[in-house]
Amino acid sequence: MLGLMQHWPLLIHRIIDHAAIQHGAREVVSRGVEGAIRRTSYAGIRETALKIAKRLAKDGIVLGDRVATLAWNTERHLALWYGISGIGAITHTVNPRLFPEQIAQLIGHAEDRILFLDLTFVQLVEGLADKLPTVERFVILTDAAHMPQTSLRNAVCFEDWLAGTDADFAWAELDENTAAGLCYTSGTTGGPKGVLYSHRSNVLHAMACAMPDFMGLSSRTVVMPVVPLFHANSWSLAYSAPMTGAKLVLPGMKLDGASLLELLDGEGVTLTAAVPTVWLGLLQHLEATGARPASLKRVVIGGSACPRAMTEAFERTYGITVDHAWGMTETSPIGSFCSIKPVYADLAGEALYDLKVKQGHPQFTVEFRLTDDAGRELPWDGKTFGRLKVRGPCVAGAYYRHDAPILDEHGFFDTGDVATIDPHGYMQVTDRSKDVIKSGGEWISSIELENLAIAHPDVAEAAVIGVAHPKWDERPLLIVVPKPGRTPDRDQMLAFLAGKVAKWWLPDDVVLVDSIPHTATGKIQKTALRTLFADYRLPETGAERSTRTGGS
Amino acid sequence: MLGLMQHWPLLIHRIIDHAAIQHGAREVVSRGVEGAIRRTSYAGIRETALKIAKRLAKDGIVLGDRVATLAWNTERHLALWYGISGIGAITHTVNPRLFPEQIAQLIGHAEDRILFLDLTFVQLVEGLADKLPTVERFVILTDAAHMPQTSLRNAVCFEDWLAGTDADFAWAELDENTAAGLCYTSGTTGGPKGVLYSHRSNVLHAMACAMPDFMGLSSRTVVMPVVPLFHANSWSLAYSAPMTGAKLVLPGMKLDGASLLELLDGEGVTLTAAVPTVWLGLLQHLEATGARPASLKRVVIGGSACPRAMTEAFERTYGITVDHAWGMTETSPIGSFCSIKPVYADLAGEALYDLKVKQGHPQFTVEFRLTDDAGRELPWDGKTFGRLKVRGPCVAGAYYRHDAPILDEHGFFDTGDVATIDPHGYMQVTDRSKDVIKSGGEWISSIELENLAIAHPDVAEAAVIGVAHPKWDERPLLIVVPKPGRTPDRDQMLAFLAGKVAKWWLPDDVVLVDSIPHTATGKIQKTALRTLFADYRLPETGAERSTRTGGS
Repeated sequence: MLGLMQHWPLLIHRIIDHAAIQHGAREVVSRGVEGAIRRTSYAGIRETALKIAKRLAKDGIVLGDRVATLAWNTERHLALWYGISGIGAITHTVNPRLFPEQIAQLIGHAEDRILFLDLTFVQLVEGLADKLPTVERFVILTDAAHMPQTSLRNAVCFEDWLAGTDADFAWAELDENTAAGLCYTSGTTGGPKGVLYSHRSNVLHAMACAMPDFMGLSSRTVVMPVVPLFHANSWSLAYSAPMTGAKLVLPGMKLDGASLLELLDGEGVTLTAAVPTVWLGLLQHLEATGARPASLKRVVIGGSACPRAMTEAFERTYGITVDHAWGMTETSPIGSFCSIKPVYADLAGEALYDLKVKQGHPQFTVEFRLTDDAGRELPWDGKTFGRLKVRGPCVAGAYYRHDAPILDEHGFFDTGDVATIDPHGYMQVTDRSKDVIKSGGEWISSIELENLAIAHPDVAEAAVIGVAHPKWDERPLLIVVPKPGRTPDRDQMLAFLAGKVAKWWLPDDVVLVDSIPHTATGKIQKTALRTLFADYRLPETGAERSTRTGGS
Repeated sequence: MLGLMQHWPLLIHRIIDHAAIQHGAREVVSRGVEGAIRRTSYAGIRETALKIAKRLAKDGIVLGDRVATLAWNTERHLALWYGISGIGAITHTVNPRLFPEQIAQLIGHAEDRILFLDLTFVQLVEGLADKLPTVERFVILTDAAHMPQTSLRNAVCFEDWLAGTDADFAWAELDENTAAGLCYTSGTTGGPKGVLYSHRSNVLHAMACAMPDFMGLSSRTVVMPVVPLFHANSWSLAYSAPMTGAKLVLPGMKLDGASLLELLDGEGVTLTAAVPTVWLGLLQHLEATGARPASLKRVVIGGSACPRAMTEAFERTYGITVDHAWGMTETSPIGSFCSIKPVYADLAGEALYDLKVKQGHPQFTVEFRLTDDAGRELPWDGKTFGRLKVRGPCVAGAYYRHDAPILDEHGFFDTGDVATIDPHGYMQVTDRSKDVIKSGGEWISSIELENLAIAHPDVAEAAVIGVAHPKWDERPLLIVVPKPGRTPDRDQMLAFLAGKVAKWWLPDDVVLVDSIPHTATGKIQKTALRTLFADYRLPETGAERSTRTGGS
């Protein structure tokens, strides 16, 4: 027997409707790529989104069409999301940090019909235009005054494109499983992997993320998503902020420490979110200037593991709480959050930071499973490493235009992360399954070594990769970017790590480099490092020493 | 085009699974009707629920069957909810405060097959058993030691009924729209009106209610729902507490001030929820004993309008925040919550309490509409009265076994409440549409007069009804229950109200009574008052004075 409650599909435009009705005057502040700060409101975003929807319909965009954006976090990009999905079309958010060839490949794979792009990307796209046959029109996200000369087909500036259109438009009535967003993972093996979000998955993800143990958004929150809209749904914030009436501050393209601090303080931001590399920049700026954020209470850090030293710097030096989060494009993306359950409420000092390096526990809509390579369940004891698998309504069930099944026989998706889960449900990523160092049949976590190394006062960034070893198969190599003017030597670094991990985990060598390559999403690019150090030979003595004295 | 996210229906048993996995040791504490405090955990509740499901299946209960409970808030009642819906059957929560004939009528209308009842209701049900032909078995919620002699058919005590059953059971795989709960409204006109909740509606309601501006539940919350499980889903708490890992304290049948304070302090309760009459008892106990709750931070008050004096007593005297809530059986039930949006963040003193008497703003899953009798939209100006209509996935679309449509042409349900909505979305119920006093073609809010009268230091409770008037059609009569030893007279009361409302709103007379009748859910029973005062004649002079000097 079915219940007799109302039919009210979970549609994304209901979020901006709710925001406009219940929080209509709440500000949306953007740093435009043209330079100036622009101010609108949720009522303004909804009005622009309705105009966009009406204009897209007039341009012949229909249910299921893909429309691409190549844009920073601004109010125009936000309105586009609501406008595009509001007619049942699909927002394909393209990551501008990809290589140009990848961008062309993904736009081709998606068969995008329109591309909305920021001024900063005009030159890039002009160079690619020949490789973008599906794109009928290029809309530059600016006004007539800033519109450049361009060779792009049917190019028009956004404000002119919208100028003749009013907001008298009714959102499409859709099945809640209608596709709304397309985001390709940064992984490139096996062809493009696009995650096709639905209205339902994005709405449920926003609801689950807004809860107190996760993003914890209320109408009094002022949130700045530094995490980009083009990066996996901006960790829910483009949806959960209007859903809850939180003020939204969009930093555009200026993500350096000084620019971020200006917005944090100027707009009274209480909560912000980004990958660790962004926060390195902010912390360095704070240290250099002696400034202290005035209103900021909480920082959500994810995308890659947050170094313990970063958490301690925010919490101990600035009194700003760090919430470590985990997720991936395939999980919409938030999959867990390291908020403090009451069983850990009394932790302080080192014990607290031992907990806070973990990626935490999943919200209601995410189920965890930990297995070995053969799919057997592993214990949640906080020690046993295993493959982390996830299931839920906001987890990918398949990739766009890929036939290969991606779920196991229980319906779980293998995240590719290697993790432990403790008895209270706290997950810690110990490595990517392809980055884990296999030494003598046992696994060594490259990430754990990196997190320890980054705490050394002379170290700006650190990476650990496995290099070939004749006897042990692989052994760890520590690659270090020193802080300006510092030159930590091999013995200093190894002495610093000694006692903090099992002896047989200690790297066989330490190499200083000027910089470490990053992926488009700011993660350390292990593949590039492995290529760079493909011919590296470990010192015989070091390998013997560190392996001879250890054990599994 | 549909999205490619996982199929993961919103099913109620996923809540208790999540609680058992992620918050398995979190306590569920109950005051048993046998007297003792019992302690279990979410893992324990899940295990009992699985046993219940397995045993129900063995007893032949199948998808869509109705199973009734007549029970207080205890861990057994909670486990029953999850066990019953976990096989696709429907929990019909019967309100024990109804008249016995109504109880029999509703169980007959629902065609319940099993009735689970607390010890306290055995005698009541024995008297009704002949009128309950559909009930095949009566299960008394106790153990063998406390099992009474009873004439009830196939009577068995709960613990014996479960004794031979283990928890090795797989929850039913269901469509998320499957019916899960049945709750009849207290209104009796036009035959029984049963609201048939679905798995989806209950899960979405819990998610929306858990958010920071509403119940605001985290894993660190300790919540005591005094609001009964038999009263419209316990305001979401039976679902939202396990969903978030909040500790749950269930007060059983002892709802007096001393018993509640014992649990509040003894269990470290931080949040509690109930109707105003419950809090009158607690406040009187605190005043009499000089006690102050030790851990309580927030009280949610709804079910009927919370008197301003009650809010002020909690906040000013005890430093406990009051959140005024509104809803009804048909809205699952939470429809709005008076949390403070930033536009009102600077309110203090009287201005703050002017806001806090309002019922507040709706969560994401509730849409408001305000219309006149003809269905025309009215302005949200905080002044204009209108019919309050609601729409959403947790709002009833029809009544169980009723053919009559209950939604307007836009899909909205008429709540029967008369309300204003201010420009920031804050709704205030000014009356029930059937209780509003129509004087000379204009409307007078009986509730507003009651809230003003209750603030008089000699008044324990107050009600206002319309009584017939030859010239003005209806005029207000104020009915007062004085505090012990006090006898406020008519002129004192009218002088107290003067200046606080328009002169033509002032009651024509004041009557002192020993008590005021209440409905089964604790609301003032206006119909009974109208019957009681059916022959009441207003004093000529009073009517003339108060109406002559006024104006619309």
